[in-house]
Amino acid sequence: MLTCRIHAKEDMRVEPIADPDIGPGQVLIRLGAGGICGSDIHYYFEGRNGSFVIREPLVPGHEVSGVIAKVGAGVTRVKAGDKVAVSPSHACGQCEYCREGREQLCRNMRFLGSASVFPHVQGMFAEYFVLGERQCYPVSGEVSLGELAFAEPLAVALHAVNRVGALIGKSVLVTGGGTIGCLTVIAARLGGATSVTVSDVLDRPLDTARAAGADRVLRADRDAELLAIPQFDVAFEASGSLAALKSCVASTKRGGTIVQVGTLPHEPLPFVVNEIMVKELDFKGAFRWGIEFDWAVQYLSSGRVDVRPLLSGRFPLQDAVHAFELAKDKSRSTKVQLVAA
Amino acid sequence: MLTCRIHAKEDMRVEPIADPDIGPGQVLIRLGAGGICGSDIHYYFEGRNGSFVIREPLVPGHEVSGVIAKVGAGVTRVKAGDKVAVSPSHACGQCEYCREGREQLCRNMRFLGSASVFPHVQGMFAEYFVLGERQCYPVSGEVSLGELAFAEPLAVALHAVNRVGALIGKSVLVTGGGTIGCLTVIAARLGGATSVTVSDVLDRPLDTARAAGADRVLRADRDAELLAIPQFDVAFEASGSLAALKSCVASTKRGGTIVQVGTLPHEPLPFVVNEIMVKELDFKGAFRWGIEFDWAVQYLSSGRVDVRPLLSGRFPLQDAVHAFELAKDKSRSTKVQLVAA
Amino acid sequence: MLTCRIHAKEDMRVEPIADPDIGPGQVLIRLGAGGICGSDIHYYFEGRNGSFVIREPLVPGHEVSGVIAKVGAGVTRVKAGDKVAVSPSHACGQCEYCREGREQLCRNMRFLGSASVFPHVQGMFAEYFVLGERQCYPVSGEVSLGELAFAEPLAVALHAVNRVGALIGKSVLVTGGGTIGCLTVIAARLGGATSVTVSDVLDRPLDTARAAGADRVLRADRDAELLAIPQFDVAFEASGSLAALKSCVASTKRGGTIVQVGTLPHEPLPFVVNEIMVKELDFKGAFRWGIEFDWAVQYLSSGRVDVRPLLSGRFPLQDAVHAFELAKDKSRSTKVQLVAA
Amino acid sequence: MLTCRIHAKEDMRVEPIADPDIGPGQVLIRLGAGGICGSDIHYYFEGRNGSFVIREPLVPGHEVSGVIAKVGAGVTRVKAGDKVAVSPSHACGQCEYCREGREQLCRNMRFLGSASVFPHVQGMFAEYFVLGERQCYPVSGEVSLGELAFAEPLAVALHAVNRVGALIGKSVLVTGGGTIGCLTVIAARLGGATSVTVSDVLDRPLDTARAAGADRVLRADRDAELLAIPQFDVAFEASGSLAALKSCVASTKRGGTIVQVGTLPHEPLPFVVNEIMVKELDFKGAFRWGIEFDWAVQYLSSGRVDVRPLLSGRFPLQDAVHAFELAKDKSRSTKVQLVAA
Repeated sequence: MLTCRIHAKEDMRVEPIADPDIGPGQVLIRLGAGGICGSDIHYYFEGRNGSFVIREPLVPGHEVSGVIAKVGAGVTRVKAGDKVAVSPSHACGQCEYCREGREQLCRNMRFLGSASVFPHVQGMFAEYFVLGERQCYPVSGEVSLGELAFAEPLAVALHAVNRVGALIGKSVLVTGGGTIGCLTVIAARLGGATSVTVSDVLDRPLDTARAAGADRVLRADRDAELLAIPQFDVAFEASGSLAALKSCVASTKRGGTIVQVGTLPHEPLPFVVNEIMVKELDFKGAFRWGIEFDWAVQYLSSGRVDVRPLLSGRFPLQDAVHAFELAKDKSRSTKVQLVAA
Repeated sequence: MLTCRIHAKEDMRVEPIADPDIGPGQVLIRLGAGGICGSDIHYYFEGRNGSFVIREPLVPGHEVSGVIAKVGAGVTRVKAGDKVAVSPSHACGQCEYCREGREQLCRNMRFLGSASVFPHVQGMFAEYFVLGERQCYPVSGEVSLGELAFAEPLAVALHAVNRVGALIGKSVLVTGGGTIGCLTVIAARLGGATSVTVSDVLDRPLDTARAAGADRVLRADRDAELLAIPQFDVAFEASGSLAALKSCVASTKRGGTIVQVGTLPHEPLPFVVNEIMVKELDFKGAFRWGIEFDWAVQYLSSGRVDVRPLLSGRFPLQDAVHAFELAKDKSRSTKVQLVAA
Repeated sequence: MLTCRIHAKEDMRVEPIADPDIGPGQVLIRLGAGGICGSDIHYYFEGRNGSFVIREPLVPGHEVSGVIAKVGAGVTRVKAGDKVAVSPSHACGQCEYCREGREQLCRNMRFLGSASVFPHVQGMFAEYFVLGERQCYPVSGEVSLGELAFAEPLAVALHAVNRVGALIGKSVLVTGGGTIGCLTVIAARLGGATSVTVSDVLDRPLDTARAAGADRVLRADRDAELLAIPQFDVAFEASGSLAALKSCVASTKRGGTIVQVGTLPHEPLPFVVNEIMVKELDFKGAFRWGIEFDWAVQYLSSGRVDVRPLLSGRFPLQDAVHAFELAKDKSRSTKVQLVAA
Repeated sequence: MLTCRIHAKEDMRVEPIADPDIGPGQVLIRLGAGGICGSDIHYYFEGRNGSFVIREPLVPGHEVSGVIAKVGAGVTRVKAGDKVAVSPSHACGQCEYCREGREQLCRNMRFLGSASVFPHVQGMFAEYFVLGERQCYPVSGEVSLGELAFAEPLAVALHAVNRVGALIGKSVLVTGGGTIGCLTVIAARLGGATSVTVSDVLDRPLDTARAAGADRVLRADRDAELLAIPQFDVAFEASGSLAALKSCVASTKRGGTIVQVGTLPHEPLPFVVNEIMVKELDFKGAFRWGIEFDWAVQYLSSGRVDVRPLLSGRFPLQDAVHAFELAKDKSRSTKVQLVAA
């Protein structure tokens, strides 16, 4: 079976490895589709993701759907042939954060496809891979494997929205029209926001945001004056750009909320806090997700949300390098996926 | 000009009265459409609404849209010709409840069309009526006067949903498929509920609930077993029936929330509380609305919500008695409106 | 070693059993002090606690402190000689309720000293008993084993307060001056309530409530008129009495919150809900506790709260029957404890 | 009567002005005590407070207690001779912020002693001054006028705590041991925090913080390593210092909350936001107060909180310049008050 592994900066190989064994409670999954995320791109092009440096070959990939190929002893949650969304997260369920309902902050988190610990936790860009049954979410119905692979980033967006609370009656700004930005548009509309505005410095992401349901789009570079008027109840900063964060602070009304969501750049992102106090804002971080993964699977499988406008391309595992290059170029793609050949 | 007035139980007259004067800050409004509410029906058929007894002729009507006919000195919020939704609520803005953002609980509330105080606060089932400009919400766009008259009951439903908080990821039950029940379906879907189930003892309300967006409908009399299984995260009791409230308690999951919304019957509604503690439920009352009226106007005028499936009939003011009779019969109508001739 | 076991209604025996083995991750604990709770009393005097019927000999006891006698392989959290508060709760950490931070609602809960499942989960009224290390909370400092045994009921009270949120600026009523009522007084004062009033039908509980910090006490039978005036922001119903619950509804202000906490009587407790809607109240159940157990241990071991006024008597395990009789009589006792001889 | 007026930077005069008239609904108040706040100090020493520049003589002073000297027609809330805390805030009660229960964000706020609008809203450092009755809070009991003048800054601290929610079970850091920092210690302890740690760069504020109830004090300059360990659930930044804010971010645990409270320096206060997302923090501004003023008056008049350790000196109005100089020097004073001669 073929596995995609990053050996070092700009050294990613699709290579055969031995068939994995499955133990009790485990399942063997055949890759359906795997979305390439910003952190995967960082690992490949930089050999690191922020402070997490690749120290041994790392299989990237944590946005994955698949089909159950084989189940181990005692498995009850899924059976061979099931179409599944796969959660990359394994929280301990016993630390203080888990006990308070914030498993994304788990002290003992094992998150697939990450070099944050050593040995690294291997990811899922592989023809076949083994996991505990608890991380598999079987779905029925017509949802495609490609759509189902959006469960993880959709969970990120639902969690960001959840950090605010109810959105009915609220006007929303999303800065950044990438995958997380566009999924946040979908989540904010799902939550009933009165209007959703998106800003970006490129036209392509704004076109995608429109297709995802944005009521209004702004070019941050050309519409700076508009973005200086306090007018939004809630802003989601999904670009990692300092200028965008400043726009959020300026254009949020008194008493409003700003949520920082998605990967930040490696360098520090300084900003000016005086307005936080004078306008009595809430500035909140949103990191990954907890129970929202379960919700994302439900919304995707019921067809309640439509992520298809975000899918820019699909490549066989063997073409991983090409896929990563396209995924990196935001003027040409939103989400790029890998599939088993 | 003609005014509809209830003089006593089953004695409602449409009679001419002198043209009203308008003072500074006031406006004269021509009736666009006025929805007949349960409390209006109680006043007419029983001469009272619970403990509020008619002691002088009362103009009913608090769900109203209209057109500005004339404005008094100093009015800036609206101008003649404006299409407006009219808020029946006037809170003081200074008591402890207003200061804590719960104007619906205002100690000094004046609510139009109500015999709760004497002299009564007259309502708006009249060809023309006078109000302070602050109670008028001008709208542009294509929304009809008939739809706009749903702002008040839609605000009730939005407030009920707001009492729960975010609905994303939540499964919802609504007991009762009348106007408030159906608008709660709309509000719960707007807020992103994963699914909305409605129960009633009649087919017609369930058909309307379907048209309003319910995912599933149940006949409470025939599907009692289904309604005994804990399965909903949130239940809205909108029927005022003891049996329905018991279904809410039984079918809500541990840790769930039940909201009682809309008019209760005059007689006490006893229920058994043990499950509230053992399942750790939240049982919350929802009374009228606050800022949600403003939101209701926005959602109606932007076309984001569609209330048209709820409108069962429109009658000229002169036919008020017929209209009230139809409005009372839930096997034949959901919302019935009066319009200026 | 001696163990206290209920064989049937009014048949409780203190009898020797074989020394228990400890496995990896387990510890052997010598009883320090064990508070007799209402559910223990129900099991002894009625052979059941509500719908949970004794079907095999049951060791009661879930409010316990002790000293670690021996530790199994791999234990790191405690060592022999440690003074510990013992949590009677073992939640799974993986069901939907655990994942949302509400472990007290866990689908797979094992709660010590309970006949809710069969075989029963044995409790801790025994000279020695074995548990997993995770359920032990080691404390240093001067707190006595008797005080430490209040961790469990104090956690109940802290959880009840937590169900409301911040109490600063709030006036509080507690109906019922038993153990839970008095601990709720302590918790409400700890949370900064502006004033705490307690009602009961006996003088002794009211005296204890005063000693626990109540600002005002009322005899519910003699002060009924006072208890009919809306004046409290928050009420905690800790008596299981219908009359008390009605007082809570009547004396809570518009927009207020009522929490039902502690064991309910076996019979249904009906009440009238109209006021819930008209006054827009929140009526919430509080069931056991989650992370609040950890907090209770902290507050007890730091001396921040003083539970000593609640301790009415201590008896050696051999005198369990006498102790249970005293514990049942609320005119003579608040909390009665058992200790190892 | 004498009035203290700032004519320009470092030009403050205590000068006689004509006796003021009182209209209907107004009262004449004789100054009891008036605390000198950071904004007063900025107006005097810099001729401005941030972007608010003195353009006509300004009477400073907004932390004031007094005695009612005379009441105008129709006044019912107070009578001559009443001891009162005086609220410097007048919100409109009708804008969107007021309606949502956040009067401190009122679009039409008139706040006494402020150059934010022109003509300026005059403050209360005067022998006598006139206000609407609604801004007066009569108190009975033994609380001194000096203590009562802490109502305003105590309200700031209670509001900061209120922005977090319940503090039971939470460990707290307060950076800055000035008036607001020490009052936040009092408020956090009132709300039940398990422990309160205070940091400052001077010893005197730390001594005052200890006297106000801090469990632990740290010298930020010497204990930098301790302040880099994630250990607090909640941090209140009350110093306006960038280094302190960085300590808050570093020493707050995952999922924690940081509140910025009190006046910020004029220059921008940049900071690094990456940790906000990765640790999923909430960073919230707290601006002035709403209903918390009422609570502050209650806690002071009931003796529940003791602000006396914060009072460093009292000066007659004539010595305002000396008083301002002392107030400015944090190595010598916490709160300095002016009193009528």
